[in-house]
Amino acid sequence: MSSTPGHLHKCTDATFTPVKTTIHFSIADKVGALDECLAAIKAMNISLSRIESRPSKTADWDYDFFVDFDATSAEQVNAVSKSLEKLAKQVHVVGTGGVSGAAASAELPDSTPWFPRKMVDLDTFADKVLEMGEELDADHPGAKDAVYRARRAEITNIAKQYKTGQPIPHIEYTLIETETWATVFNKLITMFPSHACREHQYVFPLLIQNCGYGPNSIPQLDGVSKFLKDCTGFTLRPVMGLLTSRDFLNGLAFRVFHSTQYIRHHSKPLYTPEPDVCHELLGHVPLFANPDFADFSQEIGLASLGASDNDIERLATIYWFTVEFGICRQGDQLRAYGAGLLSSFGELEYCLSDKPEIRPFEPAKVAAQKYPITEYQPVYFVAESFKDAQMRVREFANSLARPFSVRYNAYTESIEILDSKEKLVRYAQSIKSDMLTLVDALQKM
Amino acid sequence: MSSTPGHLHKCTDATFTPVKTTIHFSIADKVGALDECLAAIKAMNISLSRIESRPSKTADWDYDFFVDFDATSAEQVNAVSKSLEKLAKQVHVVGTGGVSGAAASAELPDSTPWFPRKMVDLDTFADKVLEMGEELDADHPGAKDAVYRARRAEITNIAKQYKTGQPIPHIEYTLIETETWATVFNKLITMFPSHACREHQYVFPLLIQNCGYGPNSIPQLDGVSKFLKDCTGFTLRPVMGLLTSRDFLNGLAFRVFHSTQYIRHHSKPLYTPEPDVCHELLGHVPLFANPDFADFSQEIGLASLGASDNDIERLATIYWFTVEFGICRQGDQLRAYGAGLLSSFGELEYCLSDKPEIRPFEPAKVAAQKYPITEYQPVYFVAESFKDAQMRVREFANSLARPFSVRYNAYTESIEILDSKEKLVRYAQSIKSDMLTLVDALQKM
Amino acid sequence: MSSTPGHLHKCTDATFTPVKTTIHFSIADKVGALDECLAAIKAMNISLSRIESRPSKTADWDYDFFVDFDATSAEQVNAVSKSLEKLAKQVHVVGTGGVSGAAASAELPDSTPWFPRKMVDLDTFADKVLEMGEELDADHPGAKDAVYRARRAEITNIAKQYKTGQPIPHIEYTLIETETWATVFNKLITMFPSHACREHQYVFPLLIQNCGYGPNSIPQLDGVSKFLKDCTGFTLRPVMGLLTSRDFLNGLAFRVFHSTQYIRHHSKPLYTPEPDVCHELLGHVPLFANPDFADFSQEIGLASLGASDNDIERLATIYWFTVEFGICRQGDQLRAYGAGLLSSFGELEYCLSDKPEIRPFEPAKVAAQKYPITEYQPVYFVAESFKDAQMRVREFANSLARPFSVRYNAYTESIEILDSKEKLVRYAQSIKSDMLTLVDALQKM
Amino acid sequence: MSSTPGHLHKCTDATFTPVKTTIHFSIADKVGALDECLAAIKAMNISLSRIESRPSKTADWDYDFFVDFDATSAEQVNAVSKSLEKLAKQVHVVGTGGVSGAAASAELPDSTPWFPRKMVDLDTFADKVLEMGEELDADHPGAKDAVYRARRAEITNIAKQYKTGQPIPHIEYTLIETETWATVFNKLITMFPSHACREHQYVFPLLIQNCGYGPNSIPQLDGVSKFLKDCTGFTLRPVMGLLTSRDFLNGLAFRVFHSTQYIRHHSKPLYTPEPDVCHELLGHVPLFANPDFADFSQEIGLASLGASDNDIERLATIYWFTVEFGICRQGDQLRAYGAGLLSSFGELEYCLSDKPEIRPFEPAKVAAQKYPITEYQPVYFVAESFKDAQMRVREFANSLARPFSVRYNAYTESIEILDSKEKLVRYAQSIKSDMLTLVDALQKM
Repeated sequence: MSSTPGHLHKCTDATFTPVKTTIHFSIADKVGALDECLAAIKAMNISLSRIESRPSKTADWDYDFFVDFDATSAEQVNAVSKSLEKLAKQVHVVGTGGVSGAAASAELPDSTPWFPRKMVDLDTFADKVLEMGEELDADHPGAKDAVYRARRAEITNIAKQYKTGQPIPHIEYTLIETETWATVFNKLITMFPSHACREHQYVFPLLIQNCGYGPNSIPQLDGVSKFLKDCTGFTLRPVMGLLTSRDFLNGLAFRVFHSTQYIRHHSKPLYTPEPDVCHELLGHVPLFANPDFADFSQEIGLASLGASDNDIERLATIYWFTVEFGICRQGDQLRAYGAGLLSSFGELEYCLSDKPEIRPFEPAKVAAQKYPITEYQPVYFVAESFKDAQMRVREFANSLARPFSVRYNAYTESIEILDSKEKLVRYAQSIKSDMLTLVDALQKM
Repeated sequence: MSSTPGHLHKCTDATFTPVKTTIHFSIADKVGALDECLAAIKAMNISLSRIESRPSKTADWDYDFFVDFDATSAEQVNAVSKSLEKLAKQVHVVGTGGVSGAAASAELPDSTPWFPRKMVDLDTFADKVLEMGEELDADHPGAKDAVYRARRAEITNIAKQYKTGQPIPHIEYTLIETETWATVFNKLITMFPSHACREHQYVFPLLIQNCGYGPNSIPQLDGVSKFLKDCTGFTLRPVMGLLTSRDFLNGLAFRVFHSTQYIRHHSKPLYTPEPDVCHELLGHVPLFANPDFADFSQEIGLASLGASDNDIERLATIYWFTVEFGICRQGDQLRAYGAGLLSSFGELEYCLSDKPEIRPFEPAKVAAQKYPITEYQPVYFVAESFKDAQMRVREFANSLARPFSVRYNAYTESIEILDSKEKLVRYAQSIKSDMLTLVDALQKM
Repeated sequence: MSSTPGHLHKCTDATFTPVKTTIHFSIADKVGALDECLAAIKAMNISLSRIESRPSKTADWDYDFFVDFDATSAEQVNAVSKSLEKLAKQVHVVGTGGVSGAAASAELPDSTPWFPRKMVDLDTFADKVLEMGEELDADHPGAKDAVYRARRAEITNIAKQYKTGQPIPHIEYTLIETETWATVFNKLITMFPSHACREHQYVFPLLIQNCGYGPNSIPQLDGVSKFLKDCTGFTLRPVMGLLTSRDFLNGLAFRVFHSTQYIRHHSKPLYTPEPDVCHELLGHVPLFANPDFADFSQEIGLASLGASDNDIERLATIYWFTVEFGICRQGDQLRAYGAGLLSSFGELEYCLSDKPEIRPFEPAKVAAQKYPITEYQPVYFVAESFKDAQMRVREFANSLARPFSVRYNAYTESIEILDSKEKLVRYAQSIKSDMLTLVDALQKM
Repeated sequence: MSSTPGHLHKCTDATFTPVKTTIHFSIADKVGALDECLAAIKAMNISLSRIESRPSKTADWDYDFFVDFDATSAEQVNAVSKSLEKLAKQVHVVGTGGVSGAAASAELPDSTPWFPRKMVDLDTFADKVLEMGEELDADHPGAKDAVYRARRAEITNIAKQYKTGQPIPHIEYTLIETETWATVFNKLITMFPSHACREHQYVFPLLIQNCGYGPNSIPQLDGVSKFLKDCTGFTLRPVMGLLTSRDFLNGLAFRVFHSTQYIRHHSKPLYTPEPDVCHELLGHVPLFANPDFADFSQEIGLASLGASDNDIERLATIYWFTVEFGICRQGDQLRAYGAGLLSSFGELEYCLSDKPEIRPFEPAKVAAQKYPITEYQPVYFVAESFKDAQMRVREFANSLARPFSVRYNAYTESIEILDSKEKLVRYAQSIKSDMLTLVDALQKM
C-alpha cells in the first residue's frame, strides 16, 4: 500500500523536560522604570538567555518585555513571576514545557497555553519533536539500514540548528536519493492532470521553471521557500520530524510550514510511513502558492494559538481532513487538494473512486470525525472552495471557548492579541485606511 | 553652523547609463503557453539575467513574468517588447534608466514611470546614486583627507554589494570614528528631553538597551534594522549616498529606509553636509519604531510609486518638511520629530525658538514650499499627530493624477496594482475578513 | 386541534388579470431630453396613471423614470417598450401580472421577475391576494355565518383601500370579537413564560404598556406599527388575505409586514385555518421589535427580490420554518420564536415536547424540507441565534442564481441595485464613513 | 439691495419659559421592574403628557423610558430625577427650556445640552422660535400691511400645529402671492444656467415636472417633501420663523429641513429680510435632492447634537458659509450652491464677480469667520466637492470636545449614542454585513 500519512499524530500534547521559559510583562513609561525592572531581573540570579524590550503596540506608552531563561523548577518560575508582579503589569509566564505550564496554571486560574508571539519564537520548536527523524520504528523500511539512518541524522541535525531568518541549508542529495525522488515524481505526474485540483495543476509548471522541479534532481527547500514567499508569504522551515499538533498548527498562524528535508527509503519508493521531502514538495508546496489556500491554512493556525488541548485536537482533525486529505468540488468533478493524497499514488486514485464515503465540509462535524493513520481514509470531506472553507473555519474558530481574539501582523511577523481599546482602535483605523484605498481604487477602475 | 541636510536633493531625476531592463507580462494558463513564451525570449538572443514566473494575484489563472536583461539600445527594448506582445498580454517595459524609459514612453503613450513591484527590485537602486559617498565636494570637511576618503570607499562598497535579504555587514568602526559619534551623541542627548517629540523620547531607552546605543560605540545597522522590523516592520538598507528622490521615496513604500553607514569627518563632529550614520541613528531610527510614523512614512512612499516627475518633486518636498524637518504639537508645546532637526544641535534649538515661521501642515501648500538645503529652514510645518498627517497625505495622494491605486502586501513584500475586478474582490474580502475579526474582538472585550 | 397556519401557501405565484404596468428607464442629462421623452410617452396614446422622474442614484447625471399605465395587451407593452428604447437606456418593463411578465420575458431573455423598488410599489399588492379574507372555505368555522362574512368584507375592504404612508384605520371591534381575543390572550399568556423565547418575553410587557395589549381590547394595528417603527423600523400594512409568497416576502425587504386585521370565528377561539389578528399580534409583533430578528427577516426579504420562482419557493420554506415555526436554543433549553407556534396553544406545547424531530438550522436543507399546513409540524429547525441565522441566510442567498446584488436604502425607502461602478463607489464610501464613526466612537469609549 | 439672509441668526441660544421636560432612563429587565417604575412616576403627582417604554438598543435587556411632563420649577425636576435614580439607571433630564437645563447642569456636572433622540422630538421645536413669522420688524416691507400680517399669522399657525408624520397642509396661495413668486421665479431662472452649480441645474427640471415648479403657481411643501424623501430621505417641516441655531441644526441630523411656508411682501418681490418660501423652494430644495449634499448637511446636523454653545456657534457659521452662502469649484469655474445666493438675484451675480474675497473651505477657519447678515458677504469659501466638504466637516466635528459619538438610524428615525460595547458590536456587525454585500456585488459586476 502506498499510503502517505500526514503531519499530525492523533495524540494530545506530550510534556517535555523544560527547555526554556519566557516571561512577558509590561511596564509604564516613567523615568527609571526600565532600569529598575532590569535590575530586579538580574537580582534574581537566574541565567537570562534573552532580554528584549519593545514598544507596546498600544497607545499606552508601555514597554513590553520578553525575558527568556532556563527554568529549573516550578518554584523558581513562580518566584520570578511574583517578583516581577511588584514592578510590572500583565506578567505572563509563556514558557514552554511542563514546568512552566504547571506554574502558569498555578498563577493564572484561567491560564492560556503558551503560544508563539513572534516569528523567532518558532525557534523553540526545533528540538521538541514527538518523533525524531532518525529514530525509526522497527517496521520502517530503513530501520535496519545504518547508512540511511546516519544520513537521516545528518539532515535532521540541520533542522535542529536552524534559526529564523537563516537561509535553509542546501542538501547535496545522493544519486540513490535522487532516484527515489525520480520514481515518485514520474509516477505522480501521470496522475495530476486527472486527479489534482486546478490550483495544483496551475502552479506545477511554475515550480518546474522556477524551483527546479523535475525528475533529475530534488528541489532545494530554500528556493522553494522563496518562491512561496513571493506568491503568498508562506515560507518553509526545516523540521526534524513530527511536531506536536499544537506547535505544528501554531506555525501556520505565521504562514510557516514545517517541512522535512530527508527522503523515504529507496527500497520502497512509493511508500513512506511519515512525511518526507517528496510529500512536502509534491503534495504541500503547490497549494501553499495559492492565496485562498494560504488564507485557509493560516486561519486554522490562528485558531490554534492558545487553544485548549481539546480544541487543538479538533483543529488538528480539521487540518487532517483538509490540508492532508481534502477533496474539493471543481465544476461537476471532485479533485484532490490534500497533500497526503497528492503524494500517494494509491490513495490519490482511491479517493476519487466510488469506494470511500464523501461528505460536505462542515467543520464542527469534521472536527469530531475519527480517522486511521496507517491506511486509506474511509471518509473524505468536500470543500466547495478554499474561500468558503476559510469562512467556515473562521465561524468554527469563533465558536471555540478562547476568550481573546488575535490578528497576525505581517509587517512585524508577530501576533497581536486584541485585548485593549487601544489595539481595537488601531485595528479599526487600519480597516478604515483600507476602505479609503478600496474607494480610491474603485473610483479609478 | 551645524546644519544636517536630509536625504533629498532638490533635483529631478537624472538619467543614467542603462544598467538593467525589466519586462513584465502576463500569459493565460493554457497548455504549452509557458514554454512557448520562454522559447520566444531565448530566440531573441539577449542575455537574460533573471526569469521569474509567478502566479497572478488575480483569479484569472494568468501567469506573471518578470524578465531582466541588459539592454544595449532603445531599439532592442522595442524589439523584445513587440515580440512578446504577440504571445502575451499586458506587456510592460519597467526597465530602469534612460533607454528603457524612452522606449517605454515610445511604446505606451500614457507611460507610467518605472517603480519597484517587489522588495528585490530595490537591489537595482544600489549603484544609481546621485552622489557617491566617496566623491566629496571641495568644501566637504574630509575632502582633502585621503584616509577618510578611502574609508568611505570601503564602507560604500559594502552598500554597493548589498542584496535584499542579506544581513547588513558589521562595520568595525575605528577609534576616531567612535569618538566623533560620542561627541555627537553626548551633545544631542542633552537636548532630547526638552526638544524631541514624545515618540522619540519613548523609544530612545529601548535603543540603548536593545541596540547598543550609547557613547562608547556606534550601533550596527543590522541590529537596529531587526529591532525596527519587530516594532513596525521597517528595515534599513545600506546605501552608497544620495539616491534620486524617486528611488528613495519608492523604498518607503516597502517600509525600507536607505541608510548610510559611514560617519562625518572627525574635524567637524557637529557638522555634516550630507546624511551620515549619526543622522540616521539619532534622527531617523527612533521615529521609525513608532507605528503611526511608520504608516505616515509608507503613505508618502506609496504615493510616489509611478508618480509623475512633478509629483515626485512635490512628495519629496512633503518628505523634506516632515520626515526631515517636521515639528509637531504635543499638548501645548511644539516638539521636533524631523531627523534633520533631531540630529543637528544647532537647528534643533533654533527650530523651537521664535525665529522661524510656523505653519499648519497642509500637504498641498507644503508641497509647493521652496526650501534651502544648506542653511536652517525659514519655515516649518506643524503636524497635529502622525495619524492626522497620514490621512492628509492620503487625501493629497488621491488628488494626484496617477490613474491607478496600489496596496502593499506585507506577506509577499510586493506592490499590488488594484486594477482589476478580481483584485478589488480579493481586497474587499480581506477587509471583510478583518471586520469579522474586529467584531469578534469587540465581543470578547 | 389548535393549529395556526402561517402566512404562506405552498404554491407558486399565480397569474392575475393585468392591473398595472410599470416601465423604468433612464435618460442622460442633456437639454430637452426630459421633455422629448415625455412627449414620446404622451404620443403613445396610453393612459398614464403615474409619471415620476427622479435623479439617478449614480454619479452619471442620468434621470430615472417610472411610468405606470394600464396595459391592455402584451403587444401594447412591447410597443411602448420599443418606442422608449430609441430615446432612453436601460428600459425595464417591471409591470405586475401576467401580461407584462410575458412581455418582459419576450424582451429580455434573461428577464428578472418584477419586484418593488420603492415603498409605494407595495400598493400594487393590495388586491393581488391568493385568498381574499371574505371568501371562506366550506370548512371554515365562519363559512355559514353571514354576519361574520359581512364583517370580514368590511375589514378587508379597508386593507384594499390602504395606501403607503396613510395611518392604518382604527377598527371598532365588537364585543364578540373582543371576547374571542380575550380567550386566546388569556390562554396563551399562561404558556409564554415557559415556552416563548426570551426576546418575546422581553417585549411583551412593553406591548402591554405602550400598545394596549391586554384581555379587554384588541390592540389597534396603527399604534402597534408605530411602536415597531420606533424599535426596529418594521411597520405593519393591512392586507386582505394571503398574498403570493413572492409579494409577501418582497414586503419584508422593506421591513414591511403584511398583517390581517380581522379575527377568527368566535365559535372556535383557539382554532383558525389562516392568519388573523390574534396570530399577528401575539405571534409576529413581539419578535419584529427585536433588532436581530428584524435583520433576519429583512434578509429573507432582500433575497426574494427578483428571485426565480424556484428560489422564491425555497425562501418561502425557510420563512415557514423560522418566522412561522422556528425554535431557538437559549442556554440549555429550546424555546419557540415562530409566530405559528406562539399563537397556537396546542402546537406551542407540542413543539417543545419530545414528539417532533429537531434539526439544526441549515438553510440549504431547510429550503428543501416538505411541510404540512393543516397539522402540527413533524420537524422543527433550531437556530443558535438570530444573528447566526441571518448570516446563514445571507450565505444561502449569495449561493442563489440571482445575477445582481441589492441593498435597502432606509432614507429613501427604496431598493438600490448595485450594478454599476458608481453605485459601488457610493456604497463603499458609506461604509468608509461608517468606519470613521466607529473609530471615533471606539476612541471615545 | 436684494439680499436674502439665511436661516441662522448670529446669536447664542436664548432661554424660554419652560414648555415641556423629558426624562430618559433605563431599567433592567426583571419581574415587576416596569410596573414599579411606573408606579413611582405616578406617585410623584405630576401631570405626565407622554410615557414611552422601548426596548434598549443594546443587548443588555434593559428597557428605555421616555417620560414627558410640564415642569413648573427646577426643584420639581430635581425631585423627579432623584426619585427615579433609586429605581433606574442612566437617568437623564433631557428637558427643553431654561429650567430643566439648569436642573440638568445641577445634577450632572458634565451635563450635555438636550438634543432630540427621535424624530418626534422635533415637535418640541414648533413654538420655540426666536422670531415669529408674524412679528415683523419696523423696517420689514410688510410691517404696516395688516392684511399681510394676518396672512402670515394664518400660515405660521399651521406650522405651530404641525406634528411629525402628518402631511404638510396645502396652502391656497392668493393671486398676489403667486405674482410675487412669479417675479422671483422668472428673474432667477435667467441666472441659473450661468451661476448655479451643476447639481442645482440637474435637479431643477425634475422639480418642474414632478413638483409643479413654474411661474404660474407656488409649489406645495408636501409634494416637494415627498420628492426629496424619494431622492435622499430629506423631508421638509413647516416652521413659524427662525429657530435657534441649535434646534435648526439638530433637525438636519434627522435629514429634516425646517422650511417657512409664507412669502415675502409683494411690494419688494426681489427683497426679503428673512427666509421665505421663495428662498426655500428655489435655493434650498434643489440641493437637498443631491445625495452628497444631503450627506454633507446631515454631517453638520450630527455634529450639533449635544454640542456646547460655543461649538453650536461654530457649526452655525459653517452652515452659513456652505448651505446658505457656499460656492464650489466645477471644472475651471466657480458656481453657487448656497441657498442665500441662489435665491438672491443681486448676490448671485455679485458672488461670482471679482469683488468678494474667495478662500478655500477649511472648516476650522470658516468656523471663526465673522459675517454680516444684512448685506452681501465680503468673503466666500469654495468647496472642491460636497463629498470632500463632508469629510472635512467630519474631521472638524471629531476635533470638537463632545465626549460621545452618534449615529443616525434611518430605520427607526432615531439617534443612537455609541456609548457601550454592545452598541459598538452591533454597529460593527452592520458594517461587516455591508462589507458582505459589497463583496457580493463586486463579484457580480
